Amino acid sequence: MSDKIKVIKIGGNVVDDPESLQKFIADFCKQTGPTILVHGGGKEATRLSGALGIETVKIDGRRVTDSTTLDVVTMVYAGLVNKRIVALLQSNGVNALGLTGADANIIRASRRPPIPIDFGFVGDITPSDVNTKGLCAMIKSGLTPVICSIMHDGRGTLLNCNADTVAATVAMAMTEEYDADLIYCFERNGVLKDPTDDSSVIDKITPDEYRRLVEEKIVADGMLPKLSTAMKAVEYGVKEVVIKNASDLLISAGTTITI
Amino acid sequence: MSDKIKVIKIGGNVVDDPESLQKFIADFCKQTGPTILVHGGGKEATRLSGALGIETVKIDGRRVTDSTTLDVVTMVYAGLVNKRIVALLQSNGVNALGLTGADANIIRASRRPPIPIDFGFVGDITPSDVNTKGLCAMIKSGLTPVICSIMHDGRGTLLNCNADTVAATVAMAMTEEYDADLIYCFERNGVLKDPTDDSSVIDKITPDEYRRLVEEKIVADGMLPKLSTAMKAVEYGVKEVVIKNASDLLISAGTTITI
Repeated sequence: MSDKIKVIKIGGNVVDDPESLQKFIADFCKQTGPTILVHGGGKEATRLSGALGIETVKIDGRRVTDSTTLDVVTMVYAGLVNKRIVALLQSNGVNALGLTGADANIIRASRRPPIPIDFGFVGDITPSDVNTKGLCAMIKSGLTPVICSIMHDGRGTLLNCNADTVAATVAMAMTEEYDADLIYCFERNGVLKDPTDDSSVIDKITPDEYRRLVEEKIVADGMLPKLSTAMKAVEYGVKEVVIKNASDLLISAGTTITI
Repeated sequence: MSDKIKVIKIGGNVVDDPESLQKFIADFCKQTGPTILVHGGGKEATRLSGALGIETVKIDGRRVTDSTTLDVVTMVYAGLVNKRIVALLQSNGVNALGLTGADANIIRASRRPPIPIDFGFVGDITPSDVNTKGLCAMIKSGLTPVICSIMHDGRGTLLNCNADTVAATVAMAMTEEYDADLIYCFERNGVLKDPTDDSSVIDKITPDEYRRLVEEKIVADGMLPKLSTAMKAVEYGVKEVVIKNASDLLISAGTTITI
C-alpha cells in the first residue's frame, strides 16, 4: 500500500472572503499527512479587469484569455491570491510553497487549439504533463505545494487553466507514488439533488449513478463539468473524490465519488 | 575553499523592456554554476497603480506601501514579473523557481517601525532572516531561485522590501555555505565619476575609496544607497560586488567593490 496524499482545491467563495479563507486555512493546518492545495482566483480577477476597463468575456462559463487578461489573471492568481494563502499557511506553521506550472517546471500545458473556439492563452493538461518527481521531492522535504491555475507551455508563454482540472490532473499524476484523494471545497454542501435545497446532498456517486444523474438531468448545469472531471479522476486511479462545503473540511460530509 | 555562488539583481530597466529581458535571460542562461536571481518590479507597479487611480507616494525615493499598494506590488512583483521571468528561464532550459520571502519561508522580514517615517507595509531584513538551508537545498536539487522583493512577517502579512537590499542580504546569508558574489545589473555602465558620462566608470572601489567618494560628493545621489548596500555586503563577507550594465552580464565590465 502506498502513502496517502490529499489534493484539496478551494474555489472563489473561500478565496474571496478573508474570514472564510482564515477559517479554511486554520482547518487545513489541522490535517495530517502530505497535502497539495490548488486554488482558483475568485472574483478578484473580474474585479481587477473591471477596474482596468477590460471586458471579461466568457464562453460556456470559461474565461477567454487575451494577453491583457492573461496579465490580470497572472497578477491575481499567481501574485495576490497565491501569496496571501502562502503567508497565511506560514503563519499557521505550514511550510507552504506557492507555485505556477512554470515554477520548477511543475506542470507544462498545451495551448488549446483555436478551433472550434479560440479561448486565447488557455492551456490544457494531462497527468503526464505533471512533474510528479519534482512535486514529490518538495513534499518529501516537508513543503506544502500551493498551486494556482497559471501554467506554462515550456516556450516562455504562460497559460490560464481551469483550477478544477489542475487539481484533478495533479491528483491523477500523484497516483504514481501515492494513494491520492481529491477534495473539491466550494460554497455548496455537495452534489445536490435539488440545487435550491442545500440539504439534498447525494452521499455517493459511482459511474453508473453518474450516468443516470446526467441522463435524467438531475445534476445542475454548473455542477456537470466538476462532476465529469471528478469521474475522470476516479476512473484514472484517484481513490475518491469528495465534493463538499469548504467549511466542512475536517468533518465527514459532502458527496463522495468512487468507482 | 567553498563553491562559488552568484546573486544577480536586475532592475526596472531590464524588467520593463521585453527585448532587454529576453537578451538578459539568454545571457543569464549561458552562465555556469549556482545562481540566484533577484528582481525588482520596474515601472509596471506605478503603471498599474496609475490605471487603478492609486497615488504612488515616495519618500526619499522609496515607495510608501499602504494596503492597496501592497496588493499592487504583490500582483506585479510576485505575479506578473516573477512568473514572466520564470517562464522565460524555463524556456531556456533553466529550472527556475519563483519565490517571495513567504514561499518555503525563505526570508522573513520585520515591519519597519512607523517612526520617524511610516512607510506602511515595508519590511527590513538581515542575513539571519534568510532561510539559508532552504535556499541551499533548492540550489542543490538543481533549481534556480528567482526572488522578488515581497517578503512576509511570519504572522500572515506580506511586506514590500527594497530589491537591492534583498539581493545583498541573500548574498550575505549565502556566505555561510558559499563564496558569494553579488552583481547589480542596471541601466548604467557602473558607478560613474560623472553621471552625465557613461564612459567615466570607476573600475574598483574599496572602503577607503568609498569614503572619499562620499565625502567629495563624487557619487551621485541615486547611486549612494546602492553603493552603501554593496559596501555593507563586502564588509560582511561577500567576495565582491559588481555594479554593471545589464547587457554586460557575460563580460568583465562595470565597477567592482571589494574590501
